[in-house]
Amino acid sequence: MRMTDLIAKKRDGGELSTEEISFMIQGYTRGEIPDYQMSAMCMAILFRGMCDREILDLTMSMMHSGDVMDLSAIEGIKADKHSTGGVGDKTSLVLCPMVAACGVKIAKMSGRGLGHTGGTLDKLESFPGFNISISDERFVENVNRCGISIIGQTADIVPADKLLYALRDVTGTVPSIPLIVSSIMSKKLASGADVIVLDVKCGSGAFMKTEDEAEELARGLTRVGRLAGRKCAAVITDMDQPLGNAVGNALEVKEAIAVLKGEEKGDLLDLCMSIGSLILTEGGLAESLEDAEKMLTEAVRSGAALKKLAEMVEAQDGCGNDVYDTSRLPQAPVQYAMKSERAGYISRIDAEGVGLVSMHLGGGRITKDSGIDLSVGVLLNKKLGDYVEAGETLAIIHAASEESAKQQEESLRACFNLSDSPVQRPAFIKAVLR
Amino acid sequence: MRMTDLIAKKRDGGELSTEEISFMIQGYTRGEIPDYQMSAMCMAILFRGMCDREILDLTMSMMHSGDVMDLSAIEGIKADKHSTGGVGDKTSLVLCPMVAACGVKIAKMSGRGLGHTGGTLDKLESFPGFNISISDERFVENVNRCGISIIGQTADIVPADKLLYALRDVTGTVPSIPLIVSSIMSKKLASGADVIVLDVKCGSGAFMKTEDEAEELARGLTRVGRLAGRKCAAVITDMDQPLGNAVGNALEVKEAIAVLKGEEKGDLLDLCMSIGSLILTEGGLAESLEDAEKMLTEAVRSGAALKKLAEMVEAQDGCGNDVYDTSRLPQAPVQYAMKSERAGYISRIDAEGVGLVSMHLGGGRITKDSGIDLSVGVLLNKKLGDYVEAGETLAIIHAASEESAKQQEESLRACFNLSDSPVQRPAFIKAVLR
Repeated sequence: MRMTDLIAKKRDGGELSTEEISFMIQGYTRGEIPDYQMSAMCMAILFRGMCDREILDLTMSMMHSGDVMDLSAIEGIKADKHSTGGVGDKTSLVLCPMVAACGVKIAKMSGRGLGHTGGTLDKLESFPGFNISISDERFVENVNRCGISIIGQTADIVPADKLLYALRDVTGTVPSIPLIVSSIMSKKLASGADVIVLDVKCGSGAFMKTEDEAEELARGLTRVGRLAGRKCAAVITDMDQPLGNAVGNALEVKEAIAVLKGEEKGDLLDLCMSIGSLILTEGGLAESLEDAEKMLTEAVRSGAALKKLAEMVEAQDGCGNDVYDTSRLPQAPVQYAMKSERAGYISRIDAEGVGLVSMHLGGGRITKDSGIDLSVGVLLNKKLGDYVEAGETLAIIHAASEESAKQQEESLRACFNLSDSPVQRPAFIKAVLR
Repeated sequence: MRMTDLIAKKRDGGELSTEEISFMIQGYTRGEIPDYQMSAMCMAILFRGMCDREILDLTMSMMHSGDVMDLSAIEGIKADKHSTGGVGDKTSLVLCPMVAACGVKIAKMSGRGLGHTGGTLDKLESFPGFNISISDERFVENVNRCGISIIGQTADIVPADKLLYALRDVTGTVPSIPLIVSSIMSKKLASGADVIVLDVKCGSGAFMKTEDEAEELARGLTRVGRLAGRKCAAVITDMDQPLGNAVGNALEVKEAIAVLKGEEKGDLLDLCMSIGSLILTEGGLAESLEDAEKMLTEAVRSGAALKKLAEMVEAQDGCGNDVYDTSRLPQAPVQYAMKSERAGYISRIDAEGVGLVSMHLGGGRITKDSGIDLSVGVLLNKKLGDYVEAGETLAIIHAASEESAKQQEESLRACFNLSDSPVQRPAFIKAVLR
């Protein structure tokens, strides 16, 4: 078998066989197929697409390029969720304790952030002492005992994706549904969950610009997950402003706690209710979405969800009490209130722009090895459609210094557009795909 | 400027600017742009195509990646021709002396063959002592004195094409009109001729399978040549059987001499007349194609064309007399006559298959550094449409040994198909594009 022939086959619209896909992924992972052939293949796939069978084969080949988690020692239904990425996305911190409180097992591997904001791991490290690299044995034991554990991805999960993603990033081959689906699902499948719910973002700040594109990706993801024998569902959500109010690691943890305490409503809670009820119904723990929502509401009302977060923090070398008293979490020395220069209705908040402000304040990584300031970020005081008076606070910049805050003020101000007439915010949850 | 952005632009159907194309080719030639980005770009170009302006920019950028021949010291009209490659293609050996005898200057750089058969350089080396690497000064002087010289391509002509072609060959990106056109024309333009005639082969044995594809390529080649200020024309010729009767280096030289002596007619002479009259008219040396044909016919009849070949051989350290007495040319020890097993009309001669037989006899290179046996090859006794009796000779295998000849007999036999009913051979010259 020659890679050149496989490239020509895909280029001419042919279907690659299971053996051909396996040859390609194994050869590439072992360094036997060079980057220049793989990038040409990725571009051919981008133009020609792949049928479901090819995407499944690609996903499975990638999954088997490294370690596959064995969660068989964990009793009950194991669930996972994945988001295609958003600014202010602290969903896992709220959702996972909520569903764990309802009896679903969360044995989740998460990543660090590169770019605007930190990842879930960075956010969790806002809890002093929190250990994201506990042993596999402790991981399994913790999930069996508390129902929830979130750890860092082990190095050997889907090495093919690490290589491929780095290559696609510099060869214009990122926006291909088969390549995106196999990249996401190979990791999700290798992580071993029975139920997987995908949160596909769409809008100007997201990778998928239109709802149609987002739906195509969501359907691709769930189809492959089901073909691989997992329960799958997806939500398509709007990304025309940051999720929730907080952007920045410790700020987002505090917001997650506020939602778990029942003190904050809004898009973040709505999203967690939506994904959570899909997990409970797909996992067979609830009869209907309505029943599931009741269970989740009760988990918040009763404090059971917040208690799950505390149990996880405690079980991973942190202090569970920090969940109830957040004074030990990182706190920026400066809180700078950015006032509105005029009155009006908020017609736009550029999510990516707010993310960049947070990054430049020190809250995100510029390179893989950058340090990160967990305390800094932006707290939005207003969201899309809200009315603001002239002189009223639009957002609070949490910064390491007065100077740093002022340096970012102009960029943050440019993220907001105001309108004289009322603004209708588009539906946040655009579709639920089961 | 970032190569990733240029790939994405072309991927999305955009046009690359002159500066962008220059950045890409210069960067790639200098090794600053990696193969994996260039191969992704080639695949994007394959799918999206290029407008004429882009193809011209690409061609000129490639041409300027290395040395450009300065033929200004050569008086008169300099002409060149290029064939997209065929089995038994000894056109240059016949055509160049013919047009040189009519007053056109031939200052030609040629290549060695890789694959089935040797290239023009290998064929010329059948003349004992022939020197294909004379100095630039002797080259110019010879052309001014005899009107003709054929030498090896200097190492620094279009280095971008050497790199790109090797990359395209292993990344499934060969069959792209903009990439083929720029590859061919960058070399032709760098070689400095005023008049360029392209011979685009079509048919099962050729790269372009249909006449439409061949015409698209031919029009692409001539358009770019004209945009670059050269006189250009093209012929589209059939490649459903080897050109002429001989396949193999010295055998082809002997056939070329036979045509120049007026002893052999047929497709090879027809092709040389067609390309030759295009060169003479485009170069302004003949008023019409008819006049040009008369001049070429007279050049053969008078012996002037053959004399030009002798002059070139003599001027390049060979012995001119070898043209008149070919006994000093390499001669295989074994001539094995392959007889037909049945009677019938020849309905197919697989050109590629005959080429492979010649290669396996030792007449072509398997790798770049393979040695080559100039004496071996195949002499066809019958061509498409001819009638053959059972037991009559179909072809003569010229081999190094009886054993070697017999080893190839079966493969050569498989190249012939016979039919009981008469076979009409399709037109050899399918189109002339001026």
